[in-house]
Amino acid sequence: MSDALVNAVNDLKPSLTDLFARIADQTGDEHGISRASYGEAETAAGESLIAYARERGLDAGYDRVGNATFTAPGRFEAAPKILIGSHLDSVPRGGNYDGLAGVVAGIGTLVALKEYGSAAQQGVRVLGFRGEESPWFGTAYLGSKLFTGQLSVSDTDAMRRSDTGRTLTEHLDEIGVARSQIDGKPAVGLDRVRAYLELHIEQGPVLVDLARPVAIATAIRGNIRYPFAKCYGSYAHSAAVPRRLRADAMIATAKLITFADEQWRRELDAGHDDLVFTCGICHTDSAEHSMTKVPGETSFSLNIGSISDDVMDRMHQGLLDKARVLSEEHHVRFELGERVGTGAVALDSAVNDGIASSSRAIDIEPHRMATVGHDAAIFARMGIPAGIILIRNAKGSHNREEEMEMDDFMDGLKVLAASVDAMDA
Amino acid sequence: MSDALVNAVNDLKPSLTDLFARIADQTGDEHGISRASYGEAETAAGESLIAYARERGLDAGYDRVGNATFTAPGRFEAAPKILIGSHLDSVPRGGNYDGLAGVVAGIGTLVALKEYGSAAQQGVRVLGFRGEESPWFGTAYLGSKLFTGQLSVSDTDAMRRSDTGRTLTEHLDEIGVARSQIDGKPAVGLDRVRAYLELHIEQGPVLVDLARPVAIATAIRGNIRYPFAKCYGSYAHSAAVPRRLRADAMIATAKLITFADEQWRRELDAGHDDLVFTCGICHTDSAEHSMTKVPGETSFSLNIGSISDDVMDRMHQGLLDKARVLSEEHHVRFELGERVGTGAVALDSAVNDGIASSSRAIDIEPHRMATVGHDAAIFARMGIPAGIILIRNAKGSHNREEEMEMDDFMDGLKVLAASVDAMDA
Repeated sequence: MSDALVNAVNDLKPSLTDLFARIADQTGDEHGISRASYGEAETAAGESLIAYARERGLDAGYDRVGNATFTAPGRFEAAPKILIGSHLDSVPRGGNYDGLAGVVAGIGTLVALKEYGSAAQQGVRVLGFRGEESPWFGTAYLGSKLFTGQLSVSDTDAMRRSDTGRTLTEHLDEIGVARSQIDGKPAVGLDRVRAYLELHIEQGPVLVDLARPVAIATAIRGNIRYPFAKCYGSYAHSAAVPRRLRADAMIATAKLITFADEQWRRELDAGHDDLVFTCGICHTDSAEHSMTKVPGETSFSLNIGSISDDVMDRMHQGLLDKARVLSEEHHVRFELGERVGTGAVALDSAVNDGIASSSRAIDIEPHRMATVGHDAAIFARMGIPAGIILIRNAKGSHNREEEMEMDDFMDGLKVLAASVDAMDA
Repeated sequence: MSDALVNAVNDLKPSLTDLFARIADQTGDEHGISRASYGEAETAAGESLIAYARERGLDAGYDRVGNATFTAPGRFEAAPKILIGSHLDSVPRGGNYDGLAGVVAGIGTLVALKEYGSAAQQGVRVLGFRGEESPWFGTAYLGSKLFTGQLSVSDTDAMRRSDTGRTLTEHLDEIGVARSQIDGKPAVGLDRVRAYLELHIEQGPVLVDLARPVAIATAIRGNIRYPFAKCYGSYAHSAAVPRRLRADAMIATAKLITFADEQWRRELDAGHDDLVFTCGICHTDSAEHSMTKVPGETSFSLNIGSISDDVMDRMHQGLLDKARVLSEEHHVRFELGERVGTGAVALDSAVNDGIASSSRAIDIEPHRMATVGHDAAIFARMGIPAGIILIRNAKGSHNREEEMEMDDFMDGLKVLAASVDAMDA
């Protein structure tokens, strides 16, 4: 990467800092940032980005399904070769950078490539997707699914936003997307696309822990989830029933969770180091429970994640087997309920290697690590080579505390701009 | 025990069956039996018992602190030698026999002793205590504490009934007990008392499991309790944080509960067979938790019971040690909060041996087992030799399903009557 391109990126730091601050002001309050999917704050963020891009000579507006779109001048209708995307919306009371950082990085890349005069700018299309966060409509990736033609009107009619109660079709109409445009076809021709790139803040503490500013994601973790698992035992007097005659749902559930933690440690010890397990919800029944009753029922969730379907399957089968053993031992019945989840998604090794070499060329040695679900998954699953650049971010995401340093963002932006410039070489 | 006394007891079966049914009708509905402490249904039960006793020639009424009281004719003011008591009240939506069975058995014993002409009748005082169940005023044994002079007006002023909001002093006034009578002195002279006896339904499934109708309680279990324990970790993205960087409050809590279960089994295997452990309440925070978040907080209760303070202390110390280890391992903080509970209460071995030999004399071989808290604890703690007879009862207590068979009750009544008769010999 030439010093000129690095300089073009560096020149953007003050204006991009202002842009983040302006959008935070527009879409946040003391509780955090709330940019509802297909809502007014999401549109306000899009408008600020479009204004910024136009001031710098880019073409900018919305595609026919409502996503904010940015290209080099005169290329708004052109079939893209490189897509750079992330999302405009946030979870309720979330942070400013989850999603937005990637869209700003895409715009910054385009501006820098234009200032530098890179030929690559001609093929780039930057997307600010709407509706990536699942709390609003109960499902994720709505903007990228509409962009790639994966939703029909019957789908959008069936989705209702949790806070307004209105359908996605109605919300699309409000932002100017007619029913006729929800046609199950891509918003632009995707035949020439060679790569989808996304920059995103890391949503965990790994880069902070390693003191590294940037990582390349090797894969998106899949998951096996049981959102509504139950264990049924028998309520009884806590002091009057001996151990052998109890059917204690809480002890059985605790032992299942303990087993998961031990199995997890065994997998890590065996070198299968990409595995996560979470029981995020667990409770005895507040209508029945008391300190002096053996609990007769628990409700809980199970959530296994890995980039390896084999590792997930082993943990999953282990939990099923253990539940069976515990049912016998504690006279309880486990009903794990509906199983949901998605398979792991591999990211493209050639794209990753390209990002890594562009990164090293500007003296940033990127860490390699797995990541969680992003819009990139939609493109990777379609067979489009996808890569994700992760930026160090303290205090996680989906909360107002998230803390991305602007210097780390600028490092990531340089890696992205250099990678795109190199791809067109 | 003479056949004549057995016959006198057997003659009572139809009328006692009717008495139980009448009180159930008066004080229950489709949800179960609700005889609030110092409430109208409790008084209605007392009135039915007093009417039954008077019809059979006993003296019956209330003592000066409101407990229903029954003696042989002309002995209402006499200092008693043998107390037979249990309680009139029930938990909200409870069963008919928890408490009431013991008062009915006391009255039945007095009637049978009178018909048989036993000299023992002269020294017996039967008590239908009010206010034994803790849900109403948040504390147990109110009637027996008032009877033994263990409550002052400042105590009863400070207690409010959960449903009415009125103080115990006000409720006592409503049933005719003046403030002046709440004087911290026993309701009758207790100097001559040689034994306190109580018959109670078993509140667990042991006798059903053993197919035995009657047991003698060896001791009342004590307990060490933490009603409001907490574990604090850190909320985080369920898929983005590796194991070594998590502070998962639910996994740490599950492992503490699992430890308790394993320690419990070790104690039983080592022959320390009187131990119970219950985590009756456990929950992640419903305002914050989700399937996709590492849980940052749990709330739970711990409840250890045993007739051995040593066994309880070992379990308690084990839990404290394990919580310390888990805090390190999982980067969490346990705050167990206020510790409450009572020591174990020994029941009198001479009284127990007397009950056992009276029981064998009528061909009932009683099981020996620990029991839970009853009014007897108040007397045993004062140094009055106390014994408890437990009656087989399916489906536990404190619920409308409780199922005492009348034949088992009659067996228990014979054991009680024979024991009292023999004590005076």
